[in-house]
Amino acid sequence: MKVTKKIVLEEHDMPTQWYNIVADMVQRPAPMMNPETKQPLRPEEMSTLFAEELVKQEFSTERYIDIPDEVRDLYRIWRPTPLVRASGLEKALDTPAKIYFKNESISPVGSHKLNSAIPQAYYNKKQGIQHMTTETGAGQWGSSLAIACKHFGLDLTVFMVNSSYEQKPYRKSVMHTYGANVIPSPSLQTEVGRQLRERYPNTPGSLGMAISEAVELARKQPNTRYGLGSTMSHVCLHQTIIGQEAIKQMEIAGDYPDVVIACFGGGSNFAGLSFPFMRNNLTKGYKTRFIAAEPEACPKLTKGRFEYDFGDSTGLTPLIPMYTLGHEFEPAAIHAGGLRYHGAGAIVSQLHKDGLIEAVDINQLDSFKAGVLFSQVEGIIPAPESTHAICAAIQEALKAKEEGVERVILFNLSGHGLIDMASYDRYFAGELNG
Amino acid sequence: MKVTKKIVLEEHDMPTQWYNIVADMVQRPAPMMNPETKQPLRPEEMSTLFAEELVKQEFSTERYIDIPDEVRDLYRIWRPTPLVRASGLEKALDTPAKIYFKNESISPVGSHKLNSAIPQAYYNKKQGIQHMTTETGAGQWGSSLAIACKHFGLDLTVFMVNSSYEQKPYRKSVMHTYGANVIPSPSLQTEVGRQLRERYPNTPGSLGMAISEAVELARKQPNTRYGLGSTMSHVCLHQTIIGQEAIKQMEIAGDYPDVVIACFGGGSNFAGLSFPFMRNNLTKGYKTRFIAAEPEACPKLTKGRFEYDFGDSTGLTPLIPMYTLGHEFEPAAIHAGGLRYHGAGAIVSQLHKDGLIEAVDINQLDSFKAGVLFSQVEGIIPAPESTHAICAAIQEALKAKEEGVERVILFNLSGHGLIDMASYDRYFAGELNG
Repeated sequence: MKVTKKIVLEEHDMPTQWYNIVADMVQRPAPMMNPETKQPLRPEEMSTLFAEELVKQEFSTERYIDIPDEVRDLYRIWRPTPLVRASGLEKALDTPAKIYFKNESISPVGSHKLNSAIPQAYYNKKQGIQHMTTETGAGQWGSSLAIACKHFGLDLTVFMVNSSYEQKPYRKSVMHTYGANVIPSPSLQTEVGRQLRERYPNTPGSLGMAISEAVELARKQPNTRYGLGSTMSHVCLHQTIIGQEAIKQMEIAGDYPDVVIACFGGGSNFAGLSFPFMRNNLTKGYKTRFIAAEPEACPKLTKGRFEYDFGDSTGLTPLIPMYTLGHEFEPAAIHAGGLRYHGAGAIVSQLHKDGLIEAVDINQLDSFKAGVLFSQVEGIIPAPESTHAICAAIQEALKAKEEGVERVILFNLSGHGLIDMASYDRYFAGELNG
Repeated sequence: MKVTKKIVLEEHDMPTQWYNIVADMVQRPAPMMNPETKQPLRPEEMSTLFAEELVKQEFSTERYIDIPDEVRDLYRIWRPTPLVRASGLEKALDTPAKIYFKNESISPVGSHKLNSAIPQAYYNKKQGIQHMTTETGAGQWGSSLAIACKHFGLDLTVFMVNSSYEQKPYRKSVMHTYGANVIPSPSLQTEVGRQLRERYPNTPGSLGMAISEAVELARKQPNTRYGLGSTMSHVCLHQTIIGQEAIKQMEIAGDYPDVVIACFGGGSNFAGLSFPFMRNNLTKGYKTRFIAAEPEACPKLTKGRFEYDFGDSTGLTPLIPMYTLGHEFEPAAIHAGGLRYHGAGAIVSQLHKDGLIEAVDINQLDSFKAGVLFSQVEGIIPAPESTHAICAAIQEALKAKEEGVERVILFNLSGHGLIDMASYDRYFAGELNG
């Protein structure tokens, strides 16, 4: 027992504020645009779709925003999460690097998504909203918003990307257990869903399509608002509780990361872990590297363009300044359903443009190989999304070995894969593409 | 935020010894018997089947037994586990009772079983054993021994009860990911398996049958030992880390339990939480009640007889003094696969006989109803086994409400149900029997 395996914090160590990186950015993100008027979007235009408090956060430039007591109260079910030294992985790789991971997989739904679901449901409830709609890819976000809505007494309709609906029946069951209504997308229940099915008859669905459906329903149904699980600034904001805890824990461990890594779908788990550390780069001249690990099948940061684009497939959202593969991009039905999104959030996109963030794209077979190794040496079977972060961390650890450097690597274990075992089965059966 | 939601301990607070209740029992369990000689079993007769250190523990009367550093080292991946105040459940029941649960579900495999799998694999490795065999019901034990064997470089063959093999394909995948060989039981690969299939052609299998197969293979294959996931004294011993942590945590919470509850299969999670608290009953005159919650479909404590019986279905094990439904009892294929075992361990049986333990039997539909309520108010979807403990805790909390008493209830959340969602689906579809 030479090294401390796991740094835990007490409830009272939990951050009381979220960190808003916009306050410290040299170049702030360009404004979102109203696609019709081509004018910068005004908060009141967004509040027909999102709860007002969330819109306020979306536009906020304040550095710290208080976490309401009711939200912290629920966070305490599983937070603070442990910071774990990946000593098994270090040994397996025979690397001089020190590898740490933040274990977000111990949340009741198995991922970090609950960090934003709880405040989103809370602010909607506070405003008197009765119904919410959302989309879900891998199902982690849908499960999270389902339990949050159940807690605050809101109804929830979830449009679940059809390929995930088929691949991950247990996720659907989890949402049912929490009382949500789950619809495979594209569906016949919205106008946009019917159009998409006509246009792409054999589509496995995508996050962009499911968002279009959820947005349409939120606009048409009375007293309803929409909730998004990633990309937007207020979602990234809520996730910063991860990195703020991690900073305290790294301090206790007596280390500071040279490299911070997270998988990248819309950017919220990446932002959540990174931004509090990035603050030290922006304000104190630290030189930490930040790596977004995205799938080869959906490489918006490594291969996309920085431009104004829609957040959904059919152009129902405002125009967002972001790295994108084009809102009509149809990603292959890879098993990391949570990473199948065409664009990156506005803040992360600006930071990437300004050279503060690196990106790597990871092959699906490499990601599962990394996931199996991690399972066997650390005991936790990672979600297919999280295996991308693990794979990038392994690459960095092997580079450190080549260079003979004791580099400190920190990555986010955004979720466990116990509900994704069918994906591992297909990997073992040799049925997956790279 | 009036009450502390969750009491966490640091790594250095983790117990360094297991607690052996035999040292404090007024009536110690009668000895196991060799079925052929009808003489008390000698340790050397067991060591052909189990690693020697485990046999030593099985016969030990020492009060405390050191936990090896290598075992504590792995425990630290997820231990100490949190003690959680079930404030959501209290509110839903509008009860004056204070309800706490020990959250064993956050282990990498999702249950308490890893607490014994790690020392079992460790002691086998230390002795130079190369292969292990075991049985698994719900799959929690098989997954646990799989990752423990992988860590210590042992091969593992798991006989998985056929009904669970069909109901829980993800559990099988977890074991594959950890590198184990999984065989549905009864199988054609052992003599006893072939006999069982002939005798009961349509059997869903049972833990007793799977044990017979694992024992046969362990006896026939060179350099192989068997590992059992419950009932035996050394397994109960390893699980006492749960209760020892809970005692420290209840002290921090400023409460002491009036009632301690756990679900009951072979008795190890029950023993693990209870025994350290029971020590205060045995040595300090405390009056805490201990309730074992078993399924109506397999009611060995409430409806079984106390007598010498075999631990497996076909009489390959020693005779054990225990509450049993008869070793040929075939439990219905209920979804709490881990509770489908005909007998109770020798220590728990003796304690029940001596009036130190109460037992209740829980209807399957009631158990799922309790599980759904718990999911919605506490966020964690419990394993079908653990729902029995929750159901019993709810009964006690409602009794406290009737009586207007502020009773302190502690139960073990032995595992989560994320891999058991097919069972919840069948419950919601109205397809389950009571």
